[in-house]
Amino acid sequence: MSETVGIIGAYSTKYESRSSRDTWDMIKEVVEGVMKSVDKGIDGKDIDVVIVSNFSDRFAGMLHVGPFVLSLINNLDAKSFRVENACAAGGTAIFLAWNLIKSGLAKNVMVVGYEKMSFQPSSAAANEVLMQAGHPSEILVGASFVSLYALIAKAYMDKYGVREEDLALVAVKNHENALRNPLAQFHRKISIEDVMKSPYVSWPLKLLDCSPLSDGAAAVILSGEPKRFTDTPVYIKGIGMAHDYPGLHQRSDLTAIAAARKAAEQAYSMANLRPRDIKVFEVHDAFTVAEVILYEMIKLAERGEGVKLLREGVTWFNGEHPVNPSGGLKAKGHPIGATGVGMACELFWQLRGEAGERQVSNVEYGLMENHGGTGATSVVVIYGR
Amino acid sequence: MSETVGIIGAYSTKYESRSSRDTWDMIKEVVEGVMKSVDKGIDGKDIDVVIVSNFSDRFAGMLHVGPFVLSLINNLDAKSFRVENACAAGGTAIFLAWNLIKSGLAKNVMVVGYEKMSFQPSSAAANEVLMQAGHPSEILVGASFVSLYALIAKAYMDKYGVREEDLALVAVKNHENALRNPLAQFHRKISIEDVMKSPYVSWPLKLLDCSPLSDGAAAVILSGEPKRFTDTPVYIKGIGMAHDYPGLHQRSDLTAIAAARKAAEQAYSMANLRPRDIKVFEVHDAFTVAEVILYEMIKLAERGEGVKLLREGVTWFNGEHPVNPSGGLKAKGHPIGATGVGMACELFWQLRGEAGERQVSNVEYGLMENHGGTGATSVVVIYGR
Repeated sequence: MSETVGIIGAYSTKYESRSSRDTWDMIKEVVEGVMKSVDKGIDGKDIDVVIVSNFSDRFAGMLHVGPFVLSLINNLDAKSFRVENACAAGGTAIFLAWNLIKSGLAKNVMVVGYEKMSFQPSSAAANEVLMQAGHPSEILVGASFVSLYALIAKAYMDKYGVREEDLALVAVKNHENALRNPLAQFHRKISIEDVMKSPYVSWPLKLLDCSPLSDGAAAVILSGEPKRFTDTPVYIKGIGMAHDYPGLHQRSDLTAIAAARKAAEQAYSMANLRPRDIKVFEVHDAFTVAEVILYEMIKLAERGEGVKLLREGVTWFNGEHPVNPSGGLKAKGHPIGATGVGMACELFWQLRGEAGERQVSNVEYGLMENHGGTGATSVVVIYGR
Repeated sequence: MSETVGIIGAYSTKYESRSSRDTWDMIKEVVEGVMKSVDKGIDGKDIDVVIVSNFSDRFAGMLHVGPFVLSLINNLDAKSFRVENACAAGGTAIFLAWNLIKSGLAKNVMVVGYEKMSFQPSSAAANEVLMQAGHPSEILVGASFVSLYALIAKAYMDKYGVREEDLALVAVKNHENALRNPLAQFHRKISIEDVMKSPYVSWPLKLLDCSPLSDGAAAVILSGEPKRFTDTPVYIKGIGMAHDYPGLHQRSDLTAIAAARKAAEQAYSMANLRPRDIKVFEVHDAFTVAEVILYEMIKLAERGEGVKLLREGVTWFNGEHPVNPSGGLKAKGHPIGATGVGMACELFWQLRGEAGERQVSNVEYGLMENHGGTGATSVVVIYGR
């Protein structure tokens, strides 16, 4: 049943810092790019629905983007709307697209994600925009997402005897991966020492534990008749979406991202696959600690054993289960509305053998996890050939 | 078929200017209010999906609101996301909710709309936020929505021999209607002379031709099993959503809001009803000229004869087809993300005979039209008992 929805095209801009480009230019590039990426060609009239994914108009400076996209693809008969679910906007758009197609409401859906975060005059200003996605009580006490993830990191480190050096491995790995990705924001190899020497943003998290402010856009086209458009679609085998309380103070366990676990369980169950069946992963490493916890949420590791995978090389590029071969949010970049869509692009390329230098070998299945806030919304998608 | 989706509860805050309330307080009020409004009671666990409708986080100062609503209704198993389609966000949310229920993806969907526009330090600042929904070329030349609607007004007046005094009738009528609506922002009777004497904002449109900046929130619950929750649901009999080019320069006819015509045709066809079968209307009178043109788009009047309905009293409160008995965007107010949801509330009350002093008599069917920008997106919904 789930084989009937597949991705038939994908396109992403390079993710950048302080891009000189207008948000609109980036959107235009990915809309034209994704249309051209479809092997057998696709006409704008084939698209029934365009779902736009964007976090904040304080970042993007644009609203009501759907009709612009419709005029670009020359199809005013399609329907269009924007979705936002904090950093999970892209995953949410894919989840909705899948639902619209599975239910017969649409045949072909374009998902367009974008964000332009580095236009802000200062990191403080950008932080203020980001924190609109926090719980009002958290905002009131002056929390930021890095300080909230620092609480998570501290609780996790204490509970499982994890050191700052362990978390640093995520950054080192993902920066190394990004060297192979021409679309990545950073092309700079870093060491554990570099991470450890980088300034604390919110102890125990340092600058190099954090994903950057990014500008970028990405787009995919999902189809209920994928073979009409390509001989090698990438199918959605399983999908899940789940929520948690928005505030950390509302949760019983600071060391988990429970929504990701729930979404992953839904996706594995639908795909009828086990974690070890999946070769390659793109997960939401907004902060290094998140990637480690996510290993456990998506059941690549037992609780408390996430770091072991890093130490043993399992999730490195040449390991058994590479995680974030793109460079991840940490090094590929994190233009919020584009992030989940960009993960889908990466897995589309990985599953089609089109990932160039960063191609993982023997990829039959890939999984993406994209979450918002400190995990109040999570979307997990499993792709297969 | 369309009788299977009905509204089972509705709630709206009063619309206000410069509200002292936090956006979050308004959301909390409508979520609790709409839950309590369901005749036979409803449990948070009965809600499958929460769709949040909001235009701009520059206005609202909040993002990722879905999980907050889920925690308020104590159901983290529901799924949630926000939609934005400029001023048509609310209508779009209702359109999606209807689709999710009709397709079997959800049984009961809560739609929550809100906006807090008057927090901005100046009208110029508010205008800048609004214009993010314009076409980039329009923004580049310094257009505002009032100047764009002024172009529409000028073209319409020239083509059909309409005078400024004619358009003023819309404002006079809607201000009179708002006197009967305790939820309305303005409770001030105005005359044609008042409108004519009010300062030009963009000739030929004057201050009293324009809807205000508003703060407010509204919520409805749609159900695929409405009789379980109330003996008197209000059914969605027909629904349509359509788009047009975002820029006025891209359109062939400045005097039409073509997307509204298309959406109305879809809705009439699904409902198998004619315009004259509908007793009461809530339409998107962001500017007076829009209401007149909408009479023609929704086929209450022939092209160019919209003003005739006003002159003959047809669309006044005691006329044959009252339009905007709530006071409309003009006088009830226009808190963007709430606007379309508030229209649904009004028609829910009108069809159930619960509209108090502003109750229209013999209401069997009601129609709402909610559009975004200068009409690049329009949603039309026909309700029946």
